[in-house]
Amino acid sequence: METVAELKRDFLAFLKKKSALQEALNLVYWDIRTKIPKKGAEGRSEVIGVLAGQIFEMEVSEEMAAFIAALAPHKAELDEVTQKSLEESSRVYELNKKIPQEEFQAYSKLVADAENIWAEARAEDNFAKFEPYLTEIVAFKRKFVEYWGYKDNKYDTLLDQYEPEMTVEILDEVFGKLRTAILELREKMAKEGTRPDASGLAVRMSEAKQRAFSEAILTKMGFDFEAGRLDTTVHPFAIGLNLGDVRITTRYDEANFKMAVFGIIHEGGHAIYEQNIGRNLIGTSLKEGASMGIHESQSLFYEIILGSSLAFWKSNYPDLVKQEPAFGKISLEEFYRAINISESSLVRIEADILTYPLHIMIRYELEKALINGELEVKDLEAAWNDKYEAYLGIRPEKSSEGVLQDIHWAGGDFGYFPSYALGLMYAAQFFDAMQKDLKDVEAVLASEDYSPIREWLTEHIHQYGKLKKPLEILKDTTGEGLNPDHLIALLNQRYEFVYKLKN
Amino acid sequence: METVAELKRDFLAFLKKKSALQEALNLVYWDIRTKIPKKGAEGRSEVIGVLAGQIFEMEVSEEMAAFIAALAPHKAELDEVTQKSLEESSRVYELNKKIPQEEFQAYSKLVADAENIWAEARAEDNFAKFEPYLTEIVAFKRKFVEYWGYKDNKYDTLLDQYEPEMTVEILDEVFGKLRTAILELREKMAKEGTRPDASGLAVRMSEAKQRAFSEAILTKMGFDFEAGRLDTTVHPFAIGLNLGDVRITTRYDEANFKMAVFGIIHEGGHAIYEQNIGRNLIGTSLKEGASMGIHESQSLFYEIILGSSLAFWKSNYPDLVKQEPAFGKISLEEFYRAINISESSLVRIEADILTYPLHIMIRYELEKALINGELEVKDLEAAWNDKYEAYLGIRPEKSSEGVLQDIHWAGGDFGYFPSYALGLMYAAQFFDAMQKDLKDVEAVLASEDYSPIREWLTEHIHQYGKLKKPLEILKDTTGEGLNPDHLIALLNQRYEFVYKLKN
Repeated sequence: METVAELKRDFLAFLKKKSALQEALNLVYWDIRTKIPKKGAEGRSEVIGVLAGQIFEMEVSEEMAAFIAALAPHKAELDEVTQKSLEESSRVYELNKKIPQEEFQAYSKLVADAENIWAEARAEDNFAKFEPYLTEIVAFKRKFVEYWGYKDNKYDTLLDQYEPEMTVEILDEVFGKLRTAILELREKMAKEGTRPDASGLAVRMSEAKQRAFSEAILTKMGFDFEAGRLDTTVHPFAIGLNLGDVRITTRYDEANFKMAVFGIIHEGGHAIYEQNIGRNLIGTSLKEGASMGIHESQSLFYEIILGSSLAFWKSNYPDLVKQEPAFGKISLEEFYRAINISESSLVRIEADILTYPLHIMIRYELEKALINGELEVKDLEAAWNDKYEAYLGIRPEKSSEGVLQDIHWAGGDFGYFPSYALGLMYAAQFFDAMQKDLKDVEAVLASEDYSPIREWLTEHIHQYGKLKKPLEILKDTTGEGLNPDHLIALLNQRYEFVYKLKN
Repeated sequence: METVAELKRDFLAFLKKKSALQEALNLVYWDIRTKIPKKGAEGRSEVIGVLAGQIFEMEVSEEMAAFIAALAPHKAELDEVTQKSLEESSRVYELNKKIPQEEFQAYSKLVADAENIWAEARAEDNFAKFEPYLTEIVAFKRKFVEYWGYKDNKYDTLLDQYEPEMTVEILDEVFGKLRTAILELREKMAKEGTRPDASGLAVRMSEAKQRAFSEAILTKMGFDFEAGRLDTTVHPFAIGLNLGDVRITTRYDEANFKMAVFGIIHEGGHAIYEQNIGRNLIGTSLKEGASMGIHESQSLFYEIILGSSLAFWKSNYPDLVKQEPAFGKISLEEFYRAINISESSLVRIEADILTYPLHIMIRYELEKALINGELEVKDLEAAWNDKYEAYLGIRPEKSSEGVLQDIHWAGGDFGYFPSYALGLMYAAQFFDAMQKDLKDVEAVLASEDYSPIREWLTEHIHQYGKLKKPLEILKDTTGEGLNPDHLIALLNQRYEFVYKLKN
């Protein structure tokens, strides 16, 4: 019979092994998207299968079940990290074990096929081709929710998997407020605003110059180049291998400096989060971001709250002009207004920050209706197009620019989209709290070192990894629950300036 | 009860899984030596431990033992690939299982420590510091040979692990001949030869130009850039992840173009080997080079036989001059003579091709004596220094340039060194056979595409992977056993020209 101390030691060793396999798998993912030669990809999928399979097997293994059963009665005797690790392991175990194995296998095969079919359907602008697959995926998801169980709303169960403790009740309220505010602001901008002139941004900037400029910003932000890398890829991402190795990627367009510069600032925010997770969480399942929404709050904090602020460009615009003098033809204010133009668009990932939440709300409402049986996949495309017309005043003419634009549903990721908008609201709330603590954030941004900002974020958010739940972090840091008012105030303030609105 | 067909299927699936883990591990190794940020390395060693541990556990598992026991009686019913895979798995199983587990663990710990101590001792030029570790390693190796068993010479057992079926009997004879020939040639060069003037090589060439020049050569050689990469590192190497992803690395010295150019040609030879292994061997333990010696024969074939030949430079020297006009101050023949200067040196990895085999023979003789109990580690440094004086006419003054220069013994790799010299002899033998088949190799080298050479190597060597034993490849390809005469003839011919020897 093992003692609790021995059990704990073995449990942590088990998690550490799982963590090492995850690190290897993440390296494989990174390599596939940055370095792998064309002919290496086919063989590498076998490696992904084996490593992902091993991780999954560990998560649902009898060994894991035995740890959970043996340690659960002794929770009070365990330190916090072991306690929370046990809770997390238990959550994942339950999630997977509640689905009958043959159904899970059928579902796994379905989504693997569906992602390929989705890509074909998108290329052909043919929703009908993808429809039967999505219909099956939704049917599985509805059934899974029954297995997993739910309280108020079936969709809550899915939300919770990406954003623990988030609910339809909360989201309906905050999204309602946010939507109203955005629509009002957009109306005012259309009626009374002056659209900025974007012609001053039509400057070619070489990849090397964009890179030099972005790296200098990353350094000021506190990205540790001894604990990370920056590479190029097709679809940019950040990935943490271990806390001393968090890699970001970008894509350069010499005709549009915004893509790489803001992309790097965004991915840098993700990476700085992981570089600063507490070392006491190494090797556990807690050495990650608290949730998708909190992770996104860090990237958006740097990209949108800081990186798109006038204060930020006051200090960085001269450096941009130094790198590429052609930018110097316009004034700082003209430049700043130009980079913050907002307009309706069909494609989420190209949207500006004022219209972006509307793209998310559309998806949220459709997902919620699908999962609750209030909408069927056969009616999805019409519903999508109607919502774009209602919220953004434009209607997709091609499926590829409409319902087929995102891969998420093909991968079965229902409940994921809201995280993007949550991240934005969290970020605005954090910024409010930070301003109270730091007093003069503008002075920090005028300096060559943004350490006070990074340190504040580490103190309140980064260090905890998954030790705290998202709403716990929010409460501890801001004293509030989810509150869209901060984002609304920021958007109003920003666009009043950008669009020269009368008061 | 499983049928033979079912057993075979399960056995191959088991090997495929092991192969996938090895691929992941090789990616980790590649990344550590090319891309990993400084602070990522510590965490990554955990990943290596887990993956290497899993591979080892599979190799000595009860599952593997069961496959071997169940399939061995049905060998005749199996196809060749499964048969040879079974033999290889069985060989590795026996190798590991014959050592008592606690001794193997003690040994593993010892070599891990010894490699660190060796690095310190080398930095401090202090053999005494390393001596107790090496003494223990040799004691283990002597004991292991008893467990593994041996026929004629104890050292044969170790040789066989790197170069199957190679023996002391064969090596003593061919090394004897080769040594005599080299010493005679060196004497002749010293007495009658004209040492080339190397001053024409003192040209700075930028990394970008060296890279462009080398990549063009790699392409002509047949290196498939869609199935590989070229990166920079500190200690260059080639590594195969899968047959569609074989990566090479190099180091650039702008003051010495030879380092990167010849290094890339060398590693390119290794990589072209693996890129052309038969697709029928994917996922098995046979999808590798036949042996260390055969692998080295491919790199040396390209580096030494082709890449250091006059015919090669006849066509490539103009391209070098085009990239870097300063090389054009000397004639092709002066250039060719200069890159082939030979002189005694203390450090193996910096040696030219004429003296290189002497460095190997010294190590071979010392290893053989150590394993057979004819030499003790306490007397090793003196023996080493004496042999350098006898064979090369120079005596190391520092351990770091003498007995401590190579890591091999610290890692327990006794029996490995001869492979380097074997590779050179194999390469010369292959060249002889190739010339008979292709008739005009010089014309191929004058062209922009060396396909006929690559195809010949693939037909006779590459495609077989580990399906054939080294001496089997040699026999099938050249009709001979190991024969140093071809290398001797090549060295004589080359150095007679380079040193303008009278006949």
